[in-house]
Amino acid sequence: MEIPPEVQVYEVGPRDGLQLERTVIPTDTKVQMVERLAAAGLPYVEVSSFVHPDWIPQLADADELFARIERRPGTRYAGMVPNLRGLERAKAANVDSVVLFVSATESHNRANLNRSIDESLAGLAEVVNGLKGTGAWIRACVSMAFGCPFEGHVPPEQVLRVARALWAMGIDQLELGDTSGRGNPRSVGETVRLLGQEIPVEQIALHLHDTRGTALANVVAGLEAGVRIFDGSIGGLGGCNYCPGATGNVATDDLVCMLHGMGVETGIDLEALLDVAEYTEAALRKPLSGRYLRAARGPWRDPDAAE
Amino acid sequence: MEIPPEVQVYEVGPRDGLQLERTVIPTDTKVQMVERLAAAGLPYVEVSSFVHPDWIPQLADADELFARIERRPGTRYAGMVPNLRGLERAKAANVDSVVLFVSATESHNRANLNRSIDESLAGLAEVVNGLKGTGAWIRACVSMAFGCPFEGHVPPEQVLRVARALWAMGIDQLELGDTSGRGNPRSVGETVRLLGQEIPVEQIALHLHDTRGTALANVVAGLEAGVRIFDGSIGGLGGCNYCPGATGNVATDDLVCMLHGMGVETGIDLEALLDVAEYTEAALRKPLSGRYLRAARGPWRDPDAAE
Repeated sequence: MEIPPEVQVYEVGPRDGLQLERTVIPTDTKVQMVERLAAAGLPYVEVSSFVHPDWIPQLADADELFARIERRPGTRYAGMVPNLRGLERAKAANVDSVVLFVSATESHNRANLNRSIDESLAGLAEVVNGLKGTGAWIRACVSMAFGCPFEGHVPPEQVLRVARALWAMGIDQLELGDTSGRGNPRSVGETVRLLGQEIPVEQIALHLHDTRGTALANVVAGLEAGVRIFDGSIGGLGGCNYCPGATGNVATDDLVCMLHGMGVETGIDLEALLDVAEYTEAALRKPLSGRYLRAARGPWRDPDAAE
Repeated sequence: MEIPPEVQVYEVGPRDGLQLERTVIPTDTKVQMVERLAAAGLPYVEVSSFVHPDWIPQLADADELFARIERRPGTRYAGMVPNLRGLERAKAANVDSVVLFVSATESHNRANLNRSIDESLAGLAEVVNGLKGTGAWIRACVSMAFGCPFEGHVPPEQVLRVARALWAMGIDQLELGDTSGRGNPRSVGETVRLLGQEIPVEQIALHLHDTRGTALANVVAGLEAGVRIFDGSIGGLGGCNYCPGATGNVATDDLVCMLHGMGVETGIDLEALLDVAEYTEAALRKPLSGRYLRAARGPWRDPDAAE
């Protein structure tokens, strides 16, 4: 296995993690989370989403949150933008990095966004055009890239079709999302290698959920296929909408722990990450699913429990 | 990545899983577990241990358990044998497969077995000699092969020294145990490749704990290094003695789910495995840590909870 000297680890917990949690946490807490994550050395923090507040009430405070966070030079603070209305909000909030989403499968795209893939792509092209000249950095995600709760296996050629359309818009980075955790080291390797024939692999990021425990195995497959950017969610924040009780995003702390153990640098302070994970657990009043967190810091203790 | 068409998955839950659980479960339940695991297609079930009952009270019923299980042709039912006294018990119980343990590090071997590595090796040689002519199949494990709670990093050469001594005794299979879950894909690959220069890689098995979430990633590294035998524990049964709240063995069900997803055959019925995992959760009255179990079967429900 060819092991690179360094990779980039991105943090999506405040956006993708919190939108999957049932608890709505206060803006103050989110400000703390975002600032502490950036201070721990994460080069990218996905802060919130400019979807309509009715869709995701957990993230209804996106505008206020972006206004309040103190931004460190060299860190990207990203906001998810679903449409032109969201774009106006993102511009008003001085968002420097934008993330866009479309599914690899028609059935999930319809279930999630109520339109066809091509309709979504047309809408995202408008958003990308609307960002021209603003200097914003644009990341676009193909979700359900390695499996779909409705369609099961997703052929790599289907992912390529959507990825190609996004890349042609002039985005800066392509994200492949294993949103339902159905990917495995074989499918991840095969899909990345196919896409890498048309899109520079150094601009492809992997966003892996640990629903079936395979996230870090898929990271290994991604590393071997040349991927150098991986997403995590602090402490494993975020469940899975389609499977109650199941895990969501891979824990950033587990990811960084494994990479550092392999001698792969990330520039991230792992102890500081664990501190943020503990802070987040206290805010949510429940244990998170990260494995290294429990191994390193011991059992979660309910602050409300009697002594 | 070279992906083999098939691998063997071994089950260690009744021995390694239960010895790490605080709950002592009834022999009846263990009989059910072992028989159902074998019926699900597992070629090897580590049934119990012939250590002194004072050491591991959870497994004090080893003799009765071996007497009661119905044995299927083609399945190995293994017992752990620590010394000549244990050997006599194993022979009396008609055990066909024996597993031996020694640590890769002096400090863990002393803490766990109260003797030096060389003293342990001398004792195990007596056990192996005592098995000559019985037809018993012998597996020996080097535990803490990829990291030690006392010594941290374990140099591959140190593992090789112990493995070489075991292999020279005439054992049938060498097991490398990541007992504290400190292994990572790089260290697993490097150690297996070094040992593979002296010991046939097809006779090397990997026993990986998921304490830090890396077990399946380490399976991928093992596959790439040529390993074709992997241990699991049903549902992720078994915690970690050194880190309360942390995970122990990788879940057999997660392992099989990933392998099948990659197109690697195991001969195991995954749905039947999940049934055994649910049965085990009910017996222990607590949720197990396997991820696919939760994704496939939903949240664990406490049978004692009010409706």
